[in-house]
Amino acid sequence: MDDDVSAVDRLQAVPLYHQIFLQLREEITSGARAFGSRMPTEQELAESFSVSRITARRAMDELAQTHLVERKRRVGTHVIFQPPAKPIEGSIEQALDSLISFGRSTQVKILEMDKVPARPPVSEALQIPNGTPVFRVVRVRWLDGLPLSYIISYIPVALGIEMTRAALKTTPMLSLLEQAGIKIGAATQTISASLADATLANVLAVDIGSPILRVNRTVMDIDKRPVQHILARFRPDRYQIRLDLHSANSR
Amino acid sequence: MDDDVSAVDRLQAVPLYHQIFLQLREEITSGARAFGSRMPTEQELAESFSVSRITARRAMDELAQTHLVERKRRVGTHVIFQPPAKPIEGSIEQALDSLISFGRSTQVKILEMDKVPARPPVSEALQIPNGTPVFRVVRVRWLDGLPLSYIISYIPVALGIEMTRAALKTTPMLSLLEQAGIKIGAATQTISASLADATLANVLAVDIGSPILRVNRTVMDIDKRPVQHILARFRPDRYQIRLDLHSANSR
Repeated sequence: MDDDVSAVDRLQAVPLYHQIFLQLREEITSGARAFGSRMPTEQELAESFSVSRITARRAMDELAQTHLVERKRRVGTHVIFQPPAKPIEGSIEQALDSLISFGRSTQVKILEMDKVPARPPVSEALQIPNGTPVFRVVRVRWLDGLPLSYIISYIPVALGIEMTRAALKTTPMLSLLEQAGIKIGAATQTISASLADATLANVLAVDIGSPILRVNRTVMDIDKRPVQHILARFRPDRYQIRLDLHSANSR
Repeated sequence: MDDDVSAVDRLQAVPLYHQIFLQLREEITSGARAFGSRMPTEQELAESFSVSRITARRAMDELAQTHLVERKRRVGTHVIFQPPAKPIEGSIEQALDSLISFGRSTQVKILEMDKVPARPPVSEALQIPNGTPVFRVVRVRWLDGLPLSYIISYIPVALGIEMTRAALKTTPMLSLLEQAGIKIGAATQTISASLADATLANVLAVDIGSPILRVNRTVMDIDKRPVQHILARFRPDRYQIRLDLHSANSR
């Protein structure tokens, strides 16, 4: 799972600098690193990924070559990629209903549950310092006896939510958040496509290289504090996102 | 382009019955054929795809085996697949802004433009009889000198919109619809993932088998009459869908 690694994977055949490039490119094109925002220095990048400065520089070189960032003397490196489309806006209340009913109408299998230190891009999505403890829960959702989605969720431990396998077996995670008194106010989602790697192929019962529908979502409370970050991967033959657009007046 | 064929492609290596199965599965899982709705009979299916009744039956067999439809004596065949998630709802006004500004901020290249008789699933999406003439426009959008999306659009000729290459070169298609007096009132979208076939690989400059972000969209006027059906295919490394959810009150 490329998105699950907070650092780089030294055992992969992909060169380290290219792994860093891929992660930063994802952060830029998904809007997590906005147009005009400052990129980390090579030194900062080398530290956060625990790689040499030469490796960090090669990753930045690749970003500059693909016109995602621009380097200027004294000013530093900034994002120059502008997403071609503005985000589409929807109602959080209605989306929560949809997500919770999805949770209730499918079966869940909890593969992993542990406390881990948050690393970028998770720490950035949750707006917490690198290393802050978070619950990490890995689940698979099933429908009619077939796997549908593979979901990795991160929730700051500091929120004080009791995250148990028993509770997660019966209750959608967003309901657990609400039961703990968190008032959900907003969410940002990035929807994209990727290919099944060996892990996904195995848990979703598809061939390696099959198409995968990707959703990265950050849920915020009514004070705009991030409370959950989710990486969800769906089998597109079993799940598609329906987005209905109406006039605001006619709803 | 599997979605572009209204009938089956006899030159493909994929067996005819399986091509029909794939198309019907797409229509069912995308919600175009709703839970509980009646499926065509084998005879109707054989006619609309111009295949033998045996081929039609094998396609229906495959649908029944994958629990998408149920066959009952005397009652006929009905869709038993229920999409696990309700559609997310968004504002059409804001989405139109986003789509039109996407059109204006990218370059367009018109690959094909012709009048064709509408076939299912296009005729079904546009709610017009099989064979009704529609404009079919195939475009590629570019950004920063690289292809971003491949779009096939269908617009009923009866709407009386003057669809010219010159107009489409400079004006987003939705703007042309609005300029022709059509008041856009709603849209339904299905977002999914697939793999690049030879056509997509060629026009989007990616390898065959690369991941592709798929959007099928039907745009309706304020009287709920479908006015445009679009199949859009995006390079996920160059375009992702951002969906921001807010409280309806705070917007």
